[in-house]
Amino acid sequence: MSKGDDTRAAILATAFQLAAAGGLSNLSIGQLAVATGLSKSGLYAHFGSKDALEVAIVREASRQFIEAVWTPALAVPRGAPRVRAIIDAWLAWGQQPGGCFFVSASAEFDDRRGPTRDALVKEQRAWIDALAKAAQLARDVGHFRADLEPSQFAFEAYSIMLGTHLFLRFLRSRDALDRAAAALDGLLLAAAATDPDATPRRRGTSVAPAAHRHER
Amino acid sequence: MSKGDDTRAAILATAFQLAAAGGLSNLSIGQLAVATGLSKSGLYAHFGSKDALEVAIVREASRQFIEAVWTPALAVPRGAPRVRAIIDAWLAWGQQPGGCFFVSASAEFDDRRGPTRDALVKEQRAWIDALAKAAQLARDVGHFRADLEPSQFAFEAYSIMLGTHLFLRFLRSRDALDRAAAALDGLLLAAAATDPDATPRRRGTSVAPAAHRHER
Repeated sequence: MSKGDDTRAAILATAFQLAAAGGLSNLSIGQLAVATGLSKSGLYAHFGSKDALEVAIVREASRQFIEAVWTPALAVPRGAPRVRAIIDAWLAWGQQPGGCFFVSASAEFDDRRGPTRDALVKEQRAWIDALAKAAQLARDVGHFRADLEPSQFAFEAYSIMLGTHLFLRFLRSRDALDRAAAALDGLLLAAAATDPDATPRRRGTSVAPAAHRHER
Repeated sequence: MSKGDDTRAAILATAFQLAAAGGLSNLSIGQLAVATGLSKSGLYAHFGSKDALEVAIVREASRQFIEAVWTPALAVPRGAPRVRAIIDAWLAWGQQPGGCFFVSASAEFDDRRGPTRDALVKEQRAWIDALAKAAQLARDVGHFRADLEPSQFAFEAYSIMLGTHLFLRFLRSRDALDRAAAALDGLLLAAAATDPDATPRRRGTSVAPAAHRHER
């Protein structure tokens, strides 16, 4: 890594902290100059524009998310244990000061157009797809039930993360993390492959293809 | 209703539309003056301050939400049918232009203090509690299973609403509404009382008290 790369990495680490705490769109080049001790013109030389800085911060956040959530999970046996590891680490990621950067930034950029929004969408789609693929792998190795729809599983897992963010940070519910844990346990239990001899499969259920086809 | 009340109601209806479309904190008294044809000083006479206007808009949004979601549900038989009616109307409410006002406004006011945030928290807590009470009633009349935890049910239902908001509006997933419908169907099916003779209850599950104790 060259000195320029080191400098850029150090700037981005600081910029990400500021953006996570105060909002991505609120971060000014001036504020970043004060925090890094660099000149505004020096920062423009590194990033070119506020838009480009924002996109670089989104990528830095993504790099940290992958490091915190995905890299450790790859060391866990594939299938249900890996899905569990991803989900646990994902939930922990959201407990940082400021909450999940991506949830906050997505709300900020909900109604805007431009490269920052596009980068936020791209990164989130990539992990939702990756989570769906991990669930599909768990299905393929027989840990999850054969009729599990991986994308539905990913939608429901991500929904619980969003619920946790709102209940914990906005509503300040004391039991938000307990609710989240119970919901995620329920999702994983519903996804788990059943012993085909243990329970008669109910036919003709009205439930559309879903992560949980609850047997009863 | 006096003429003053009529005027206030008309102003609030316009203010809510503007806030829902462009963001609550972005709404200026000047913008509202243009939209209503009233003077800024006239608007200040009605509301006193920007904070008071914001709180009044939150209450107006809540009034509309109750009218759209709760009032019709009270005409539906209590128990599972009423919970279904609430959830369906709640999902439809989020499909307005601009999406759910409360999800957007909560994100805007996530990191702020003050009366607007307090009002947003108060209204949302009230409906989450009301949804939990509707689920409890469904349990009490035997439609939902005896071990259902109503607050867990409400947490999971609200999480799915938040997931729908993100997937539909931010990620622009084509199948967001199908995912939402399947997730809500799954939640309701998991909450439904089972015929105790149909399936042996699995003992010793590791799942904490949850809306779904998935039998298998």
